Amino acid sequence: MGNRLKLVVAYDGAPFAGWQSQKNGNAVQDFLERAFRNILGHSVRVHGAGRTDSGVHALAQIAHADLPDRSLSAARWPAALNASLPPALRVLRCTWASATFHARFDAHGKIYRYRIWNDRILPPLEVGRAWLVPPPLTFDIMKEEAQAFLGLHDFSSFAANRGTPVEDTCRTIDRVNVRRSGHAISVEIGGDGFLYKMVRLMVGALVRVGHDPSCRGEIEKRLQFPERSPATARLVAPAAGLILVRVRY
Amino acid sequence: MGNRLKLVVAYDGAPFAGWQSQKNGNAVQDFLERAFRNILGHSVRVHGAGRTDSGVHALAQIAHADLPDRSLSAARWPAALNASLPPALRVLRCTWASATFHARFDAHGKIYRYRIWNDRILPPLEVGRAWLVPPPLTFDIMKEEAQAFLGLHDFSSFAANRGTPVEDTCRTIDRVNVRRSGHAISVEIGGDGFLYKMVRLMVGALVRVGHDPSCRGEIEKRLQFPERSPATARLVAPAAGLILVRVRY
Repeated sequence: MGNRLKLVVAYDGAPFAGWQSQKNGNAVQDFLERAFRNILGHSVRVHGAGRTDSGVHALAQIAHADLPDRSLSAARWPAALNASLPPALRVLRCTWASATFHARFDAHGKIYRYRIWNDRILPPLEVGRAWLVPPPLTFDIMKEEAQAFLGLHDFSSFAANRGTPVEDTCRTIDRVNVRRSGHAISVEIGGDGFLYKMVRLMVGALVRVGHDPSCRGEIEKRLQFPERSPATARLVAPAAGLILVRVRY
Repeated sequence: MGNRLKLVVAYDGAPFAGWQSQKNGNAVQDFLERAFRNILGHSVRVHGAGRTDSGVHALAQIAHADLPDRSLSAARWPAALNASLPPALRVLRCTWASATFHARFDAHGKIYRYRIWNDRILPPLEVGRAWLVPPPLTFDIMKEEAQAFLGLHDFSSFAANRGTPVEDTCRTIDRVNVRRSGHAISVEIGGDGFLYKMVRLMVGALVRVGHDPSCRGEIEKRLQFPERSPATARLVAPAAGLILVRVRY
């Protein structure tokens, strides 16, 4: 297979049932595979760098697909595919990758951004793009406590159960930027890998301590003693605030 | 009538048929009037500072309504109304205004912002919020030519026909900020009043000269000699890129 096409894909998560193929055909992967079928006349499997849940957005998800030939140049594939895709899903760029490239297995990490709106009312243009968290929320404490995530930790208390057990729950986080601009608070998190709902549980923990300063130190404890982490501490931030920003290779 | 309530209203223009009441009841005004009726049990007229077209957004539209009494405090009205409104429409603040305050007649001016996305593909999260204008588009020329709008001019060649003729087509523009951030170009325009589709025609003219530098000086000529303005010069920017930012009182 020497015709492996690498795709950079962006989507608004709201209208889709997440990345992974669904029976109702409403996942991002389903739309991409149907777009390939419309052009090629037969099915092609599209492999993504990682699944995103329903409602989660992507600025640059990475995927690959094996094509029968190179009769269409890589530069022409985005427009060809976009013609069969809804505006909420766009193929931004395509390039030919080596036959051994794999969107998922070759990924060295990812960067996510989470958006919080800290006010009483969610502005209409933030609907589906931010988590409304009313005051009180102490930004400085969130920023300070977020530093505990940096480094190599066992994130098992920051993971939801996906059905299949994960053997190794250790991950390295190398970037945690907590920024404020007016009512918007953004949390950018980079790491070598993420467990199921890990970013949303991390942001949930930050909002918890931002709300209630008596929770200070809780994140550090949960990372040190995951098995002693109380269920009450596990707050999952809603999907709509989450954006997959970049996949690292 | 001593119970005039002033409302600050925000909306995502996409799902509405503009501000002004429509037979199908799908205008912002219709939604607000229905929300009042749900609470009061009878109809109340809501007066806006200005009409926005279908697809145009508002960060802070101003409106007023005369209520039978003050049994509900002004501070409680936003939550009461928002309970009957879709998330794409929010009442941000309410205050009691003087009996002579009028949202439309007392407005001294408005500030609008227009968003252009200068690339080949519109990112999904920009759908309904920006005008996709592919390169070439020379930002510096747009910024320079935009200065011609400043001051008092006859804007009749930057107005669409609304059916009813406008006697005085002179308006004063006191703010024109053209900014770039990555692929996004924003045009912020402030003035003492705006004719029908005026901002969208102004932005259309800027995109025209950004595309084709030979159009330099056209804006100045159209303002000086509106009656000689060629129909081909009249490019209307789409509604989705436009936001009513603020009403001045």
